[in-house]
Amino acid sequence: MNVVSQMKLFMEPGSVAIVGATRRTGPLSFNIVEKLLDFGFKGKIYPVNPEADQISGLKAYPSAMDIPGQVDLAVIPVWERSSIPDLVRQCTEKEIKAIVVVGQGFADADDEGRALQQELLGIIRGTGARLIGPNSLGVANPSKGLCTAFIDVRMESLPIGLICQSGLFFGGLPTSALLGKAIDIANASDIHFAEALQYYEDDPETKLIVLHIEGVRDGRGFIEVAHRVSRKKPIVALKVAKTEQGAKAAQSHTGTLAGRDDIFDAVLKQCGIVRAGDIDELADLIKAFLRLPPMRGRRVGIVSISGGAAIMAADACASENLEVARLSAPTEEGLQELSPQWMRATNPLDYWPIGIHSRKSAPEMAKKGVRDFLADSGTDAVIHVPGYYPPQDVSRIAKDFVHISEAFPEKPVCWWMSGYHAKEVIAEFESQGISVFPSCERIARVLAKLHQHWQFLQSD
Amino acid sequence: MNVVSQMKLFMEPGSVAIVGATRRTGPLSFNIVEKLLDFGFKGKIYPVNPEADQISGLKAYPSAMDIPGQVDLAVIPVWERSSIPDLVRQCTEKEIKAIVVVGQGFADADDEGRALQQELLGIIRGTGARLIGPNSLGVANPSKGLCTAFIDVRMESLPIGLICQSGLFFGGLPTSALLGKAIDIANASDIHFAEALQYYEDDPETKLIVLHIEGVRDGRGFIEVAHRVSRKKPIVALKVAKTEQGAKAAQSHTGTLAGRDDIFDAVLKQCGIVRAGDIDELADLIKAFLRLPPMRGRRVGIVSISGGAAIMAADACASENLEVARLSAPTEEGLQELSPQWMRATNPLDYWPIGIHSRKSAPEMAKKGVRDFLADSGTDAVIHVPGYYPPQDVSRIAKDFVHISEAFPEKPVCWWMSGYHAKEVIAEFESQGISVFPSCERIARVLAKLHQHWQFLQSD
Repeated sequence: MNVVSQMKLFMEPGSVAIVGATRRTGPLSFNIVEKLLDFGFKGKIYPVNPEADQISGLKAYPSAMDIPGQVDLAVIPVWERSSIPDLVRQCTEKEIKAIVVVGQGFADADDEGRALQQELLGIIRGTGARLIGPNSLGVANPSKGLCTAFIDVRMESLPIGLICQSGLFFGGLPTSALLGKAIDIANASDIHFAEALQYYEDDPETKLIVLHIEGVRDGRGFIEVAHRVSRKKPIVALKVAKTEQGAKAAQSHTGTLAGRDDIFDAVLKQCGIVRAGDIDELADLIKAFLRLPPMRGRRVGIVSISGGAAIMAADACASENLEVARLSAPTEEGLQELSPQWMRATNPLDYWPIGIHSRKSAPEMAKKGVRDFLADSGTDAVIHVPGYYPPQDVSRIAKDFVHISEAFPEKPVCWWMSGYHAKEVIAEFESQGISVFPSCERIARVLAKLHQHWQFLQSD
Repeated sequence: MNVVSQMKLFMEPGSVAIVGATRRTGPLSFNIVEKLLDFGFKGKIYPVNPEADQISGLKAYPSAMDIPGQVDLAVIPVWERSSIPDLVRQCTEKEIKAIVVVGQGFADADDEGRALQQELLGIIRGTGARLIGPNSLGVANPSKGLCTAFIDVRMESLPIGLICQSGLFFGGLPTSALLGKAIDIANASDIHFAEALQYYEDDPETKLIVLHIEGVRDGRGFIEVAHRVSRKKPIVALKVAKTEQGAKAAQSHTGTLAGRDDIFDAVLKQCGIVRAGDIDELADLIKAFLRLPPMRGRRVGIVSISGGAAIMAADACASENLEVARLSAPTEEGLQELSPQWMRATNPLDYWPIGIHSRKSAPEMAKKGVRDFLADSGTDAVIHVPGYYPPQDVSRIAKDFVHISEAFPEKPVCWWMSGYHAKEVIAEFESQGISVFPSCERIARVLAKLHQHWQFLQSD
């Protein structure tokens, strides 16, 4: 079986066995059978527990071997590590080819744990089975109602493929839900980044790949696959265990070697992977790569209700090696006609005095500014700092702005909204497709990374 | 009149004249008279408008001189710059000693504007009047129901004194409301940082001073006052116009000279002012200095539901030159007793395996971890990454944690909550006094700055 077919058993199984299913029920019971039913998993679910006849209304089997039909995926949610090898063996005897091991205390722990992890690999060797984990929440695929995590997970169907080494990400980091498909490779004893990346490579449901990396084992294999995949789909990565203190902590988490951070940084760049510095940036990059067009140059236009905000935005651009765009004369002249005589209309544009002078409303001025800046051949992107809009007008105003952006599909437009803007107003703009960020620094960081990725795609 | 008495006319006036009050009403009418009434200002309000008999139900006067009683503060919300000198003269003839000029087009604009600004200073010279602005929203004092801004402002009564050069901050930046008293010195033609700082210096309602700086004119005066005040009350500052592009934008905003950023940085340090790198950090520092005790050393304990989060927190500490604290043997031994045999209980503490092994709930484990880490003499602060708590339990759990923190009043405790935690849950913890931040990077940055400030206070 090739690696993609194998990964499909994990990600798109027709049947799942929970080997060592709990009989507890309700919140914090960690009952995966119950959770699969809640998520609306459409395939067959086989609880395995020698002490139960039924679990969550489904017939339970004493062992995996007793399950009548074929089983694509087995999840072993058992905590006592010494009992896990026998359960994995049961799965291989049932000829299950995809196995998730949840329990901890393997390479993340002591010498005995490391030996046990080797024992698991010995059990699957030659059987055709592959293993995710140990120490893993397994996999999630919202379009199939599949999530093998024992914790509460909110799933959203976005075209994202996540590969992580911590359950944090199933819990919703970096935003508020699991945003698409997910594979928690955790200790990564068998299935590693390279295999998981190959699943997403040609998966039609995946447009963006997100990595949380503690360490990579097979560097060469990773680079080969990542370099190929990142030309087809953007890959953004949060590499943690960056410092000696972090790397030490990673040793007792997934047992992977973190490696030198400067080397990792160079490798990620070479592979065309866009690296996020922290969780906030990861969230921003996910939003940007899902919603925004490429950033083809470094020239940014700033259209702001506030002169104070315009200064901060100019600072932020400069800090990220972006340029405050030089506008063409006709653009400046057109704005100058509406401006008080004492003001020089230029980039950054503080449109408050223009609105006062020409008796135009803030949204009118903002729309004119954003449209003119986008139409100017001197800009590659626009940052907009909006004013206060009455909540009842927001939906209409948002539509106007979306319309303007659609006329310039090759230039990213990012809005800075925070502070005085009500959360509901921000949510309304977002829901209509406007990309809102909480600070100009975060926007500049995102634009710089979009440009970096565009440059990678242009290179040979 | 000394400077503090003068500033009290601005901040605690018994009577306010709006010289050039508008007759428009309702949202976006920029009617300051209406806004003062809405805010519940208890002093006298005198609208001045030669074309009106009444404004917002109050008798209007043709000029400031026609007002019968004494006027402490005048606000001139007029946009046509050429008409402003006459209105300022009116105020001085009425012997008003505190004047706010809202209009733009002065030093923020062209040569004529710079000359006009000088003209305003000439008019007040020798009259005993002082001037805030031009280009200013004026002042706010929530405990008096006073806010002279013409835009919508949500005021909260926190013990904060803000001095800013942009209306953005009245609009609620960096959080969602104006958090205390505020002075928008804007172009700072007359009243500058030094005068405003002296008002807050001994103001009993102010515990923390926040600065938004575009540029400082009288460097020596600023340093002298700031150095003295920062030993009494923490001062945090966002200095913008850091880059050449930002400084250029500042020239057409408040017309102040931004100065070289490295010099500014050194000056702020020397004065004991804690500098925020961006808006997010400013919000975090405000929260930290209002709520948290000093950070007396660099040693941080990390108590986490997630090993993955613990790694990120350790990275974040190392990046800010903080140490992952070495625990005492008894602390580690006490936790080891509850841990699975394969795990080494240490700092950072991933308490999930302990909870599973010892059949303790997540909140029980978290409380034990945070308490033990705080009690250990090897730590100076604790970062806590909580698990999922059922919403109905949050209030009770929060009380328990507050109780634990209260037993160790000399050590800051910061929680990292984001992603999977519902906004309402975070808000409930916050409202009970727990300091929650959205990322471990932001926590580490805050702890490092708390420590920097503590070191400043220890120095001679």
